[in-house]
Amino acid sequence: MRACIDIGGTKVAASLNDGKDLQLLARRSEPTAKTGANDALARQVIRLVDDACVAIGISPASVRQAGVSSCGPFVLNQGRIEVAAPNICGGIAGPARGLPNDWMTALLESPLLERFDQVRVENDCVAALAAERRWGALQDVDHCAYVTWSTGIGMGLCVDGRLLRGKNGNAGHAGHMFVSDNDQALCGCGNIGDVEALVAGNAIARRYGSDAATLLGKAASGDAGARQLVDELCRVMGRALYNLTTTLDLQRISLGGSVFSHHRDYLLPRLQAQVEAHFPALTAGCELVAAGLGEQVGDYAALALLD
Amino acid sequence: MRACIDIGGTKVAASLNDGKDLQLLARRSEPTAKTGANDALARQVIRLVDDACVAIGISPASVRQAGVSSCGPFVLNQGRIEVAAPNICGGIAGPARGLPNDWMTALLESPLLERFDQVRVENDCVAALAAERRWGALQDVDHCAYVTWSTGIGMGLCVDGRLLRGKNGNAGHAGHMFVSDNDQALCGCGNIGDVEALVAGNAIARRYGSDAATLLGKAASGDAGARQLVDELCRVMGRALYNLTTTLDLQRISLGGSVFSHHRDYLLPRLQAQVEAHFPALTAGCELVAAGLGEQVGDYAALALLD
Repeated sequence: MRACIDIGGTKVAASLNDGKDLQLLARRSEPTAKTGANDALARQVIRLVDDACVAIGISPASVRQAGVSSCGPFVLNQGRIEVAAPNICGGIAGPARGLPNDWMTALLESPLLERFDQVRVENDCVAALAAERRWGALQDVDHCAYVTWSTGIGMGLCVDGRLLRGKNGNAGHAGHMFVSDNDQALCGCGNIGDVEALVAGNAIARRYGSDAATLLGKAASGDAGARQLVDELCRVMGRALYNLTTTLDLQRISLGGSVFSHHRDYLLPRLQAQVEAHFPALTAGCELVAAGLGEQVGDYAALALLD
Repeated sequence: MRACIDIGGTKVAASLNDGKDLQLLARRSEPTAKTGANDALARQVIRLVDDACVAIGISPASVRQAGVSSCGPFVLNQGRIEVAAPNICGGIAGPARGLPNDWMTALLESPLLERFDQVRVENDCVAALAAERRWGALQDVDHCAYVTWSTGIGMGLCVDGRLLRGKNGNAGHAGHMFVSDNDQALCGCGNIGDVEALVAGNAIARRYGSDAATLLGKAASGDAGARQLVDELCRVMGRALYNLTTTLDLQRISLGGSVFSHHRDYLLPRLQAQVEAHFPALTAGCELVAAGLGEQVGDYAALALLD
């Protein structure tokens, strides 16, 4: 048995997998630990795994391997990954956010390595990309990306058949790139006018006073005003996807996330048109597709990190 | 002896290297071949290498290995690299450019493999990056980029210790990304308002009626009007460098090229400030430096591709 762990800003989930099929067993989920010392999150993860073991009647000590898909960004401390996410760490978010801790980071890899023999931590979008490459829409595609268009925007990147990690495992934070001069939108990261600030789910609600599903539903059923707003969202998101393609010479981009998934038939051709509108020598061979694992891509992300 | 070949839109150069030091021997250079059949460029390269061999009194047949640094973009034909550059191929550039051929591509790797046993072709900026990693400012840096700010804008990228190539070897065409809404600048690639269209050397001349060296010279000596224009150039170029950093989680970016090199002391802190103004978790550990190989980075690019 191996442990599959999914860490988000809101909740943490742990489950077990027997290494023979894709079943996730004895799934346990709790609100993300944010009080006490800054190893509280890692302790919570270990406790959830141990609880799952007890639930299916195996010895916790028999689980020696863990795949961890976590929100970021990460920092490295003596080579070990810690989480420096502003929705978990009060010391980063500042007093205005009212988090019940003053952590600058949440420890992660180091305490887990005391519990497990083998630990692989990746950014959640890198892990989702690994899942799409193993079981989804990116199988046998050496130059590809997984992009989640959800509450935020995240990306996992693969070039020449290898996942990109970067100096702290933060490659793929390309939702925070700038593609326009719009300076009326503030991102959670502090940027003014980056892609996430302009088109992420929470940005749509803030900018247009309508949740993304409602706005996209209106556009899909022909409302002219809604179509104009969604065209602008697609222009910004399309530019981000084009920028990725021209930077990395990609073959295929798989898209998921709540904003995209609910209206993918409406969005996909509009995004593809944005990409193809530029530099054919680089974009002609780049195809946008919906995530093959659909809404389950997050569930399989941690599992994809295990051999 | 090995062959080092440098292919640009204007000229082609070939030289020899004995594999023991960095000396480039018997350098031959000619205007890039653009007439006849579309293997003319490859034939020219082979002839220049053979001429160089004769000049130093060795048998051309003894040179079995070639490193080729070439302008792009590339396309693959049956797995072999061909050059699809609009400044070489009349079939791409269209009749308005008046090139004396109708090539859709110039053959490259395939004819060279008939002449040499071992051929390694890379985009010129990828090759320059390889040179900076071996002998320049990017030694022992696993997450890095080389950026040339010259007549055009080109980039070579390295993540997790590996050069990025992409589906056709075109990774690093990030000078063609969009970072602003300016729609008053047309790029050679057809894009309106991409980074190259806004800040490359030829764009500066076109937009401001002054060559880049003159404009930067004025800014460096305190001219307020020139400073304002250069600040805008740095904002655009700084955003491109920031986008690269947040996409790839880089440690160091080495800059070269004629626009940058002549006023690097003026430009470097302004570009660094643009990068550091955003998302500290990703940019704090990313340093901008001038190319360690200085103006010679192009000379060593092809050599860096040889073992």
